[in-house]
Amino acid sequence: MQVDGQRFLADLHKLRSFGASGVGKGVVRPAYSEADSAARVWLAARMVEAGLRVETDAMGNLFGLAEGPSLLLGSHSDSQPEGGWLDGALGVIAALEVARSADVPVSVVSFQDEEGRFGVTTGSAVWSGQLDLAEADLLLDDSGIPLGQARQVVNDTGNVDPAQFTGFIEMHIEQGPVLDTTAEQIGVVSDIVGIRDMKITFQGQQNHAGTTPMHLRRDAFQAVSDFNHALTERFANVVTPATVWTIGHLSLHPNASSIVPGKAVFSMQWRDGDADRLGRMEQIILTLAQEVAQARGMEVSFGTMLGLEPVKMDARLRQALESSAETLAHGGWRVMPSGALHDATNVSQLMPVAMLFVPSIGGISHAFQEDTAEADLVLGLEVLAGAVAALHR
Amino acid sequence: MQVDGQRFLADLHKLRSFGASGVGKGVVRPAYSEADSAARVWLAARMVEAGLRVETDAMGNLFGLAEGPSLLLGSHSDSQPEGGWLDGALGVIAALEVARSADVPVSVVSFQDEEGRFGVTTGSAVWSGQLDLAEADLLLDDSGIPLGQARQVVNDTGNVDPAQFTGFIEMHIEQGPVLDTTAEQIGVVSDIVGIRDMKITFQGQQNHAGTTPMHLRRDAFQAVSDFNHALTERFANVVTPATVWTIGHLSLHPNASSIVPGKAVFSMQWRDGDADRLGRMEQIILTLAQEVAQARGMEVSFGTMLGLEPVKMDARLRQALESSAETLAHGGWRVMPSGALHDATNVSQLMPVAMLFVPSIGGISHAFQEDTAEADLVLGLEVLAGAVAALHR
Repeated sequence: MQVDGQRFLADLHKLRSFGASGVGKGVVRPAYSEADSAARVWLAARMVEAGLRVETDAMGNLFGLAEGPSLLLGSHSDSQPEGGWLDGALGVIAALEVARSADVPVSVVSFQDEEGRFGVTTGSAVWSGQLDLAEADLLLDDSGIPLGQARQVVNDTGNVDPAQFTGFIEMHIEQGPVLDTTAEQIGVVSDIVGIRDMKITFQGQQNHAGTTPMHLRRDAFQAVSDFNHALTERFANVVTPATVWTIGHLSLHPNASSIVPGKAVFSMQWRDGDADRLGRMEQIILTLAQEVAQARGMEVSFGTMLGLEPVKMDARLRQALESSAETLAHGGWRVMPSGALHDATNVSQLMPVAMLFVPSIGGISHAFQEDTAEADLVLGLEVLAGAVAALHR
Repeated sequence: MQVDGQRFLADLHKLRSFGASGVGKGVVRPAYSEADSAARVWLAARMVEAGLRVETDAMGNLFGLAEGPSLLLGSHSDSQPEGGWLDGALGVIAALEVARSADVPVSVVSFQDEEGRFGVTTGSAVWSGQLDLAEADLLLDDSGIPLGQARQVVNDTGNVDPAQFTGFIEMHIEQGPVLDTTAEQIGVVSDIVGIRDMKITFQGQQNHAGTTPMHLRRDAFQAVSDFNHALTERFANVVTPATVWTIGHLSLHPNASSIVPGKAVFSMQWRDGDADRLGRMEQIILTLAQEVAQARGMEVSFGTMLGLEPVKMDARLRQALESSAETLAHGGWRVMPSGALHDATNVSQLMPVAMLFVPSIGGISHAFQEDTAEADLVLGLEVLAGAVAALHR
């Protein structure tokens, strides 16, 4: 098959015009917004032109369906509140270009609310049966609007049966700095990492910062600092270079310069492609937090653990992407985990899935500045098309 | 002179009734509130009964003046938004009891806004010339009301000339755990510690917490944690057991569990009785923060340094308190620094000052639970009266 790189880039820029932010190539196209709905109307027309049958389910997931069994390609076309032009959009337009160029049956999807106006990957979570629609309807956005109300703009044409699809491939920007740093053009995803996330609270004693001697303090910030410092050492023999962990949220109480903080609540998040390793890290975290609390005469408590298991990419689909990458990028590609969640995580519950990445300039995403060189975008499209063709040979 | 412990306690409880919070012995009597004004009307009447001439300056500092040169005793009768019954009130009622029992001239003062509805020790700062009234008038409380508007409730009878006072003694609760821990009943203050306080900002790079490998992160929270950990070691050879330092405020940006924090702003406050030591600590802080920023590829910036120099208590007044304490508390007292600021800091610009402390149960202050055993309150009163008598012999 011969994809048309210029047509593909023109459509990517056209999709960007729905919700264009006026700042660089940024877009503001959150799920169910007017810009999002208008973009989906435009996408549906392109699907029809490509000879696909358009269906939209109750969540607003938009499908362009080929006849009979087919490979499903796609991603999402909703954006972050302040998003880039490629996050999700790239996978949808690449799918469209492959579908209209292919002489084999290829279906296209744009999932809804991947970016989490209401949840996280909400549209694909409902479609894959990970989340009940009735439950999803109760999710609220930041302004208190329930999803059930927001999705009334959807023209529901009924459920789309996943049994018609032989597999799912999602092309996406990396959203991280690895490919940009190594100057490679393609990443073939080995697995989507699992995530564990919980809030940890140290409860000490709030005191006057002038009258309380150091040795009589039970300073909750000091406990967080001790914990963080020791955690790096304890993790050293457990983690790989691809493992990440983050304390991204911290709130001290009462958070005043003249008061020894009596309470600290912080987020502890860690990600890895290996479920066993996630579990070993969890044990280290729980044990260490208790040790620190005991050493400083404090109480420690743990919030609900939010967890998503790692997802391995399907060997056959991945092999097709690797062969296509080697043919077209000649050693300028790598196998890598996806540190971010994607719709493919949910879809893996239904069928074999795989993903490929193109570089993000400066590793930047979820920001107006997000961008990728056009040559990399087109190469990614060609690698995807080559893999699809090979899978049908 | 013979003070009356029961009359003193009765008046302390009476003062508590103005703004009594309904929770334990707590009070809600912020500067210029209705409860504060009513309490000052009641205090003025007690001063008149004690044979003192009442004057109130433009700030609302309330004086009960003896004829001719006199020692000035007192503290403040405004409270924290959620305060205890003794913070400030103790020194005012003890002063009243000594003034009405003494056969020597003793004046009484209740300063205004010590607790910082608008500034910090605002009333005594204006009276002592540390702060212009016109400047003070522009200070805003948390709800945006300027001091100039709030003080319109004051019945201004003119300035009170500090030259009539031979010295100032402030009795206060310790507001810390030292005396409660050692089971001593009296603290004679050696000096009021100096304070330095500044905001420090680490500016790194905000990133996705899933897609950014650990070695490519510039995580501002990690910089704060490194800084805090190393600071404890660097201070070890510089500080004394009475030195304190606190990171009480910390705000991460954007403060979300899935985002590597790109920016951290935190408060660094340190206190000591020795100005040289404060300066050595400052150098360590500045140097270390720059080292940490460099090691992690970040920018560091420092906010305005707020500084108050340490204040030594007057040797003669302090000696009178020590002799009186030794007579009445027989070894159950100690010399100690004041880690908290007091009106005496400002008054020291005008005349010799001294302070004495009684224990705070559990070290608790600035809270409804603040309390002191009645025996300790009365002993403190007697030590103060003994010192005043001795100073006139």
